[in-house]
Amino acid sequence: MLGAGGFLGQALSGGLRQQNATVHTFGRTLPAGLPHDALRTEATLHDADALTAALHGQEIVFHLVSSSLPETSNRNPAEHVLEEVLPTLRLLDLCRTARVRKVVFASSGGTVYGIPSVVPTHEQAATVPISAYGINKLMIERYLELYRHLHGLDYTVLRIANPYGPGQSPFKKQGVVAAMLHRAMSGSAIEVWGTGEVTRDFIHVDDVAAAFVAAARHDGPQRTFNVASGTGRSLNQIVDDVKLVLGTPALEVVRKSARAADVPVSILDTSLIRRTTGWQPRVAWMDGLAATATWMRAAYRL
Amino acid sequence: MLGAGGFLGQALSGGLRQQNATVHTFGRTLPAGLPHDALRTEATLHDADALTAALHGQEIVFHLVSSSLPETSNRNPAEHVLEEVLPTLRLLDLCRTARVRKVVFASSGGTVYGIPSVVPTHEQAATVPISAYGINKLMIERYLELYRHLHGLDYTVLRIANPYGPGQSPFKKQGVVAAMLHRAMSGSAIEVWGTGEVTRDFIHVDDVAAAFVAAARHDGPQRTFNVASGTGRSLNQIVDDVKLVLGTPALEVVRKSARAADVPVSILDTSLIRRTTGWQPRVAWMDGLAATATWMRAAYRL
Repeated sequence: MLGAGGFLGQALSGGLRQQNATVHTFGRTLPAGLPHDALRTEATLHDADALTAALHGQEIVFHLVSSSLPETSNRNPAEHVLEEVLPTLRLLDLCRTARVRKVVFASSGGTVYGIPSVVPTHEQAATVPISAYGINKLMIERYLELYRHLHGLDYTVLRIANPYGPGQSPFKKQGVVAAMLHRAMSGSAIEVWGTGEVTRDFIHVDDVAAAFVAAARHDGPQRTFNVASGTGRSLNQIVDDVKLVLGTPALEVVRKSARAADVPVSILDTSLIRRTTGWQPRVAWMDGLAATATWMRAAYRL
Repeated sequence: MLGAGGFLGQALSGGLRQQNATVHTFGRTLPAGLPHDALRTEATLHDADALTAALHGQEIVFHLVSSSLPETSNRNPAEHVLEEVLPTLRLLDLCRTARVRKVVFASSGGTVYGIPSVVPTHEQAATVPISAYGINKLMIERYLELYRHLHGLDYTVLRIANPYGPGQSPFKKQGVVAAMLHRAMSGSAIEVWGTGEVTRDFIHVDDVAAAFVAAARHDGPQRTFNVASGTGRSLNQIVDDVKLVLGTPALEVVRKSARAADVPVSILDTSLIRRTTGWQPRVAWMDGLAATATWMRAAYRL
């Protein structure tokens, strides 16, 4: 599993342990507490030797590495291509050499479609990203299909909506739920971009981990799936729900200017993955929000 | 005009001269006979200083540079990204700095769609290329839309089918009409890949040049157009037509194995560009083929 130290990676490690899978974790920095630490490599995707060793004998590669954000990717797209796309293309060549059967790739349901042509957005909808981040995810999707076509390397693409849940850092620019909870719980004002009507589809990280497990098992002509709750929530709604969960009706909210890389609405249609793999989201929103608050209270001693 | 020394670039130079446009030609190697040689730069897209100087004061940039082929691009996709995509992203940044109004980009109607979901293929059809060449053209299309969205740099994408006509080298791997004519006219056997039923949409290079001129003038919400004849011809049909044009009924044909990067059929729907810009192909196929044969006889003393 590549990107095992990240938010999704740690949740997937937990999910795979429940499946009794043998996992080789690979990441820039890996926390000590990962379940599968018999096989672990601390390195980046630029390190071909480390990658080759880690891929040896693996049947399935989970590719969860993503080093930047939609907003920052737009400042220097060429740099972003060098950092994100090229290492993945070289990874695909190494997967061929190592006779990996399948790559499961964490794509981005919130950015590959751009401003959606249809809401909820299904997998066949137009893909016109408004960030280099989204273009590069889409490009990797196309290269996965190319490698399947040319070399028989199988793949599944998961276009993941906005994941949230225990384990998500509140200090990164991605992860608005974690950021809001932490600010509210530490007595700071919550930041809201634009009017607050920007709408996102939040999916609990345990449900995302379950989707990866379902994708690894899946075998069929459908290879690209949305992973989402299918329900949209505006930033303003989340502020209200955070107040509810924390029992703090009077929270200070600071309005900030809108960001160019933000699409106004992102809600994904999940009928394909439900129908094809049987996967469905299991964590209800308010339960997930409460569990995230409980985790954050403990993790950050709030 | 970037890529002014190539097959399309030379034809477009002729087309722009008829429009009395002031053109700065830019290319790796420029032939002496180009119409607009008051302003000319011999350099590659990697040369940022040369590009900056050439872009100065230009309103419209024609980007026709393409240094490799669908088949070879698949041998090393990462290298192809470095060679094709990154210089274009840096070009777009330079266009912003130079306050260029619009970029007209030569994309590839024969590769961006991949194995077509619908024939004739319209611009909204699925784009799943089976070559790195096609993926990278598609990626540049997406980046053009991103730069328009973020920075207001306008663009038109021309998804050009298979161009043929006077000026096309018979010795490159692209350009089957030129290759067949030259082999037939010099007494060599004609090469046909696979069964010969691979079908392409051939468009005369003068019609392509006219489409670039129409694209430069066009101003409207539609920005991506197929440029094609709309008629499919199989390799076997072209062999027959070459026999007819040359008056040589008995031509030797050698069958070669099919190529992985070849889609079985490529015929493009051109109703959008006809309706939107008034452009339409003017050179009839057999006339164009005869003119190409005449040119080749003179150019190669056959």
